[in-house]
Amino acid sequence: MSDSRRVTLQPGDTIGILGGGQLGRMLALAAARLGLKCQVFSPDPDSPAFDVVQNATCAEYADVEALELFAADVDVVTYEFENVPAATAMVLAARRPVLPNHRILETVQDRLVEKNFITGLGIGTAAYTDVASAEALREAIEIIGLPAVIKTRRFGYDGKGQAIIREGDDPSQVWDDLGTKAAILEAFVAFEREISVIVARSADGGVECFDVTENEHRDHILKYSRVPAAIPDTLAAQARDIAQKIAIALDYVGVLAVEMFVVPGAGGPTLLVNEIAPRVHNSGHWTLDGASISQFEQHIRAVAGWPLGKPVRHGSAVMTNLIGDDILDYGKWLTVPGAAVHIYGKGAPRPGRKMGHVTEIKHVTEVKGRG
Amino acid sequence: MSDSRRVTLQPGDTIGILGGGQLGRMLALAAARLGLKCQVFSPDPDSPAFDVVQNATCAEYADVEALELFAADVDVVTYEFENVPAATAMVLAARRPVLPNHRILETVQDRLVEKNFITGLGIGTAAYTDVASAEALREAIEIIGLPAVIKTRRFGYDGKGQAIIREGDDPSQVWDDLGTKAAILEAFVAFEREISVIVARSADGGVECFDVTENEHRDHILKYSRVPAAIPDTLAAQARDIAQKIAIALDYVGVLAVEMFVVPGAGGPTLLVNEIAPRVHNSGHWTLDGASISQFEQHIRAVAGWPLGKPVRHGSAVMTNLIGDDILDYGKWLTVPGAAVHIYGKGAPRPGRKMGHVTEIKHVTEVKGRG
Repeated sequence: MSDSRRVTLQPGDTIGILGGGQLGRMLALAAARLGLKCQVFSPDPDSPAFDVVQNATCAEYADVEALELFAADVDVVTYEFENVPAATAMVLAARRPVLPNHRILETVQDRLVEKNFITGLGIGTAAYTDVASAEALREAIEIIGLPAVIKTRRFGYDGKGQAIIREGDDPSQVWDDLGTKAAILEAFVAFEREISVIVARSADGGVECFDVTENEHRDHILKYSRVPAAIPDTLAAQARDIAQKIAIALDYVGVLAVEMFVVPGAGGPTLLVNEIAPRVHNSGHWTLDGASISQFEQHIRAVAGWPLGKPVRHGSAVMTNLIGDDILDYGKWLTVPGAAVHIYGKGAPRPGRKMGHVTEIKHVTEVKGRG
Repeated sequence: MSDSRRVTLQPGDTIGILGGGQLGRMLALAAARLGLKCQVFSPDPDSPAFDVVQNATCAEYADVEALELFAADVDVVTYEFENVPAATAMVLAARRPVLPNHRILETVQDRLVEKNFITGLGIGTAAYTDVASAEALREAIEIIGLPAVIKTRRFGYDGKGQAIIREGDDPSQVWDDLGTKAAILEAFVAFEREISVIVARSADGGVECFDVTENEHRDHILKYSRVPAAIPDTLAAQARDIAQKIAIALDYVGVLAVEMFVVPGAGGPTLLVNEIAPRVHNSGHWTLDGASISQFEQHIRAVAGWPLGKPVRHGSAVMTNLIGDDILDYGKWLTVPGAAVHIYGKGAPRPGRKMGHVTEIKHVTEVKGRG
């Protein structure tokens, strides 16, 4: 899977970013710290990432001419979201290095392929099976049991494209409501907690993991991340090993997030991988303020062909997402001692829309005096 | 001196920044964290700050039409340098709030007025006297003694526009070499160390000081800043009081740096104010990585009419400027554990040119594990 065209940027060179949301915005801000320019490609004229770069391309992802012009302007291409259309990635990859390698998208854009890849590495996941019809769903329920979770194979995020099936639900109705031809049924995991590992891998194979983060969701959307996760050191080491194994197996260059469930068991808790996100991740936002180098900078370093940093964590951190109307409280957050407030520059708050976040750091030993 | 036109920005509003260097760039990056946009005004098409904003105005500071259009695009104006031409500030101030108040520039653009202002507050400075001719210089030397430092009253920075006069130097020659009609002669201060205080003041009069920083210059250019300064707590408290007193007396809104000398004395060390910089300052760059809120964010909050943050320092910090060819070592710095590397996006390194900086943090108690 290696891309033979290795890239090493110089300060002043330009990284092309596909996607103009808050992740693209924070990637561009991290690049700016390092003297690298970014050009953002997004179909949305109100893209938050447009505000922080001199050059932006506002065009559809299927616009081949715009993609070609974009490729000509940049030295390397990366992306902020995993649902980059395959054709878009191919057009760009023919002209410029695309990092992480765009072929990785084939693995992570399809939940079935992703699950097969993970289990193929000997890493545990929830039991799952392929479902392509209401009849297949009935059979799958026989195997997996209930409750279970049905998920579309493609284009799901923040709980979209999935449903829980419980005893008494009508499988035909569930299938019709999902409105897809390709899904997987997963066993419902009675997890003790949700964690994630943000791992960075450089072009020369260097790997750096941030400390394991514990995540709390509300309505399928991340609400809080806490680091370090309240799990035994041995389990944290296992979690990092799993993330590292996945990054190496994908010959990955950039930052990757691996979401896992901590499952109670007779012999102590074990880990099941829930999902891979081939990009910077909401559960790594604490690194902006809680560590000497952020996930965004690690990603930029990796795609620039630069060495990864050795991040040092400043203390324990709690990241709170400001979702929808939460953002209206920004004035209150501004006055909390030690709180670092991030506002993404989006327009009106909508329910479920990620508008910003706040990170609070607690030093292991409180530092004498103030900042 | 109060400006009656109070301003309170909303996320999405735009701050106009006069000056496109690294300070303007880091201000714009801080604004972006808070969901505020910036528009940069600079005559230099290669301005580093242009890279991180969507809208820039490349025009001369005397270009009234460009200033008017700029003012129309922004909600408030601030600046990254104290030598904003008076006429420029007046054109803008007639149209938009300019913060810090542009009349403050009259005080700090002239070393004589500045010194008179400081001593008028009962704050110590080196002995100084006005000099307007070679003859006056001879008389001033009689009063001040030698060695002494002659400085042009206006437009000096990084050691430019100043010279040391020692025993045996010819005052007429020194005067001719300086090439000015207005200067001050200052007593040479045998200081023990140089320190600075970065103070922020909000529109409602709130004040926050960062911890006192110790500065080391090479060839008149800042090379290292260390925080906390190795001075007694009582002296550090005095330094903060001085900075606060100056900010209040100026009815200042924004971030202000006060440079001071620590002078040994029989009754213990005392402080003399060397210079006021009405802007974010190189000696406060450590706050980007060493505290929960940076000097840049404090300045943005103040000019936005937002409350100041309560910054918490992560530990002790050393900031190293990368000057001229120092920047060529960036690859080495990228691999130093815990080091935060900043590259300003300038073109070719020139001797004396500030190209970037690195901040290293040492936690009071090393945090277990890595970031």
